[in-house]
Amino acid sequence: MPADQLRRTRIQDLLTSTDLNREVLVKGWVRTRRGNKYVQFIALNDGSGLATLQVVADAEKFPEESLKEVTTGSCVAVRGLLVPSQGKGQAVEVQASSIEVLGTADPEAYPLQKKATSLEHLREIAHLRPRTNTFGAVLRIRHALAFAVHDYFNRHGFYYVHTPIITGSDAEGAGQMFRVTTLPPEHPPRTEDGSVDFSEDFFGKQTNLTVSGQLEGELAAMALGQVYTFGPTFRAENSNTARHLAEFWMIEPEMAFYDLQDNMDLAEDFLQSLVRYALEHCAADLQFLNDTYDKELLERLRSITDNAFQRLTYTEAVEILKSAKKKFEFPVDWGTDLQSEHERYLVEKHFKKPVILTNYPKEIKAFYMKLDEDGRTVRAMDVLFPGIGEIIGGSQREEDLGKLEGRMAEMHVPTDELWWYLDTRRFGTAPHSGFGLGFERLVLFVTGMTNIRDVIPFPRFPKNAEF
Amino acid sequence: MPADQLRRTRIQDLLTSTDLNREVLVKGWVRTRRGNKYVQFIALNDGSGLATLQVVADAEKFPEESLKEVTTGSCVAVRGLLVPSQGKGQAVEVQASSIEVLGTADPEAYPLQKKATSLEHLREIAHLRPRTNTFGAVLRIRHALAFAVHDYFNRHGFYYVHTPIITGSDAEGAGQMFRVTTLPPEHPPRTEDGSVDFSEDFFGKQTNLTVSGQLEGELAAMALGQVYTFGPTFRAENSNTARHLAEFWMIEPEMAFYDLQDNMDLAEDFLQSLVRYALEHCAADLQFLNDTYDKELLERLRSITDNAFQRLTYTEAVEILKSAKKKFEFPVDWGTDLQSEHERYLVEKHFKKPVILTNYPKEIKAFYMKLDEDGRTVRAMDVLFPGIGEIIGGSQREEDLGKLEGRMAEMHVPTDELWWYLDTRRFGTAPHSGFGLGFERLVLFVTGMTNIRDVIPFPRFPKNAEF
Repeated sequence: MPADQLRRTRIQDLLTSTDLNREVLVKGWVRTRRGNKYVQFIALNDGSGLATLQVVADAEKFPEESLKEVTTGSCVAVRGLLVPSQGKGQAVEVQASSIEVLGTADPEAYPLQKKATSLEHLREIAHLRPRTNTFGAVLRIRHALAFAVHDYFNRHGFYYVHTPIITGSDAEGAGQMFRVTTLPPEHPPRTEDGSVDFSEDFFGKQTNLTVSGQLEGELAAMALGQVYTFGPTFRAENSNTARHLAEFWMIEPEMAFYDLQDNMDLAEDFLQSLVRYALEHCAADLQFLNDTYDKELLERLRSITDNAFQRLTYTEAVEILKSAKKKFEFPVDWGTDLQSEHERYLVEKHFKKPVILTNYPKEIKAFYMKLDEDGRTVRAMDVLFPGIGEIIGGSQREEDLGKLEGRMAEMHVPTDELWWYLDTRRFGTAPHSGFGLGFERLVLFVTGMTNIRDVIPFPRFPKNAEF
Repeated sequence: MPADQLRRTRIQDLLTSTDLNREVLVKGWVRTRRGNKYVQFIALNDGSGLATLQVVADAEKFPEESLKEVTTGSCVAVRGLLVPSQGKGQAVEVQASSIEVLGTADPEAYPLQKKATSLEHLREIAHLRPRTNTFGAVLRIRHALAFAVHDYFNRHGFYYVHTPIITGSDAEGAGQMFRVTTLPPEHPPRTEDGSVDFSEDFFGKQTNLTVSGQLEGELAAMALGQVYTFGPTFRAENSNTARHLAEFWMIEPEMAFYDLQDNMDLAEDFLQSLVRYALEHCAADLQFLNDTYDKELLERLRSITDNAFQRLTYTEAVEILKSAKKKFEFPVDWGTDLQSEHERYLVEKHFKKPVILTNYPKEIKAFYMKLDEDGRTVRAMDVLFPGIGEIIGGSQREEDLGKLEGRMAEMHVPTDELWWYLDTRRFGTAPHSGFGLGFERLVLFVTGMTNIRDVIPFPRFPKNAEF
């Protein structure tokens, strides 16, 4: 094949190739160039994986002057011979026959030089940080986890449903909402009494960004059996923490005919499968994060796949916490919501494995959860993970129309706005269950990163919607 | 195994089972009940597939009185023996030994009775329509196509990136945008000159819902090589048509080192793969839609997988249209944008197969498309499908910083807002390409439905954000 017909090979594929001593064409970005007056070594990365390809440029063919634009961050196309590597650290390398600079990167201006840049600073240049080892690894793992989610559900007969992002209801009460509008902000139309006339807004009423697809997911489960959502959700909370985002992705399976036991079985198998998938498909990226940021990462991931989760009721957990020797900042008593310190004590100190807590007091849980026979607790479940706390929250849903309406009245949830939700209980109701997994929480756990702003490409938080 | 330990089997799995004469437990919704004084036949569906399971209830065991709540739409759990079917239309049936009603559906109130309900009316009850054959089929096909998208890209080394939904830029100009805000609508804070003070808004400036993830996708491609987005996008256009939604899902791959030719090859292979996947995995649902709505559906789908797409330039297409015998409503001349009637003439009459048009006049395309050498056209490509018109729009991107800035100035796109986008051309720029596929357009094509509001679970359009 003539050289100009040669097709590019991805570096990841070259590095594992056993078909050596052939001409190849690679394209990518220069991570480093070093060498001496006899030979220059260019470390090339094209994003296909963590590892770089070593390109060897002989000084006879490539005098240093000819490589002056081959600097960190520049983009080059290299033709050459794929050969066994002479050096350590890689099996193969490319002996360059031609090097074409596709795009330069002025060393005075390009921010990602060889020296390490702090994660804080990289957040300011989120448009470039995917070019670093760390964010390349995080984003590849994020991809793998997202694919594993779809693959798991597809294999298990769940249907993916796209629940609406813009919603006319704000009834779920899961959090503060962003308003979506096309009304002119300066002088919105007003009704006779002077209030803003939302009947003139795009949707003819006030609309918001969704905080959860669960209610619509339940509608779909009552028709398709097992469904899941995987989409963006939003919270307009003024939380400037390492754990909160204003925009994040959520996975919400919902299953007809599942009781709380089935729900726990699914949540445990699902989480173990996702972590196992990452361990199997992201070995190099996980090893890098383990070595660079968190020496216990791989061990912690294996602790998820290797242990059955501990299951106990909220009431049992409160007893354990009350008799614990540890002094907690927040006192525990039956009826109080558990704090992160309590959850982490149970997971990290007491049981030393993931925990599923069930049957919480109804007062601290949502209106749609199924009442237990005692009338005091509901069939809720929270899955608690080491270092993370709650990673999944779910429940069996209240399928009885009368009981659900009673709970909604008690909790001041307007039944008229949710007429369509109540219809599922009015027509062919069935026991059903579901849960929500915050995708970034999962990525945080699997990558071992500590700030949630570092596991989503372009984080949204108070005063920040850059890029 | 004692009967109360028996686990539910999905109907789809039972219908294809060869392990007969065993006790099974099925749960689902009653589609119909009919029969005589000796025997009753219940058609049961649990959403796992289109087909219903026939449950046979012998009158000796189940006097008609005992089945009075087993009406259309009710939810039942049935135990019985799985046996070869005596009747036509199914291989197996269940001889019921017990029938438990989990949820009733008052025949006076339940809207989905046996008689056909119009698609228009079903839009009003979108919370129940997934229980119909039509919407069950559409939603299962939608799921299959979404999975096929992820599977295709994962197999081909593309990474899924979640680009932001809330954006601080409105620079792309792809359409009118929804504003996202937490400012009080009645009395927003104002600056000294009386205008609304967006520095007090949640993100410290005016923000909108994204119209495309492309620009952020390009950032990721310049690091990870090949990426794709698959997320919701929004248009605040007051279009009350069968082709427009205010909220829809978009797939946008973006590839470093791809030129226009590579881009076309990818688009063609991608679309053919998706249609082939649906033909292979959704045979029963597609057959139903073919038989019920559109007798040419399957043939049209096979025309996609069996034909190479016709590729030609915009200029060549204009020549064909100008010499066509057909009278068009809108006249064609070089430089005008093609209308739906022109696109469909090319696809359905002239070439009788999918068409890829390339190299459009720069004036009718976006600022980021790569200029051709002639300075008049850009490396755009539109993929045109029968019955649909444009299903994909894409281009090679302008990778030259100077030329891109020139185009932005000509088209009044503010460069200061897009500093981060320009940085991709400033640092290690590379030839790259990408395209956008409107997911609902694809589902519309594959299902043969004619109104886009019928291929998304909960459509958003002017004056409608119900459910």
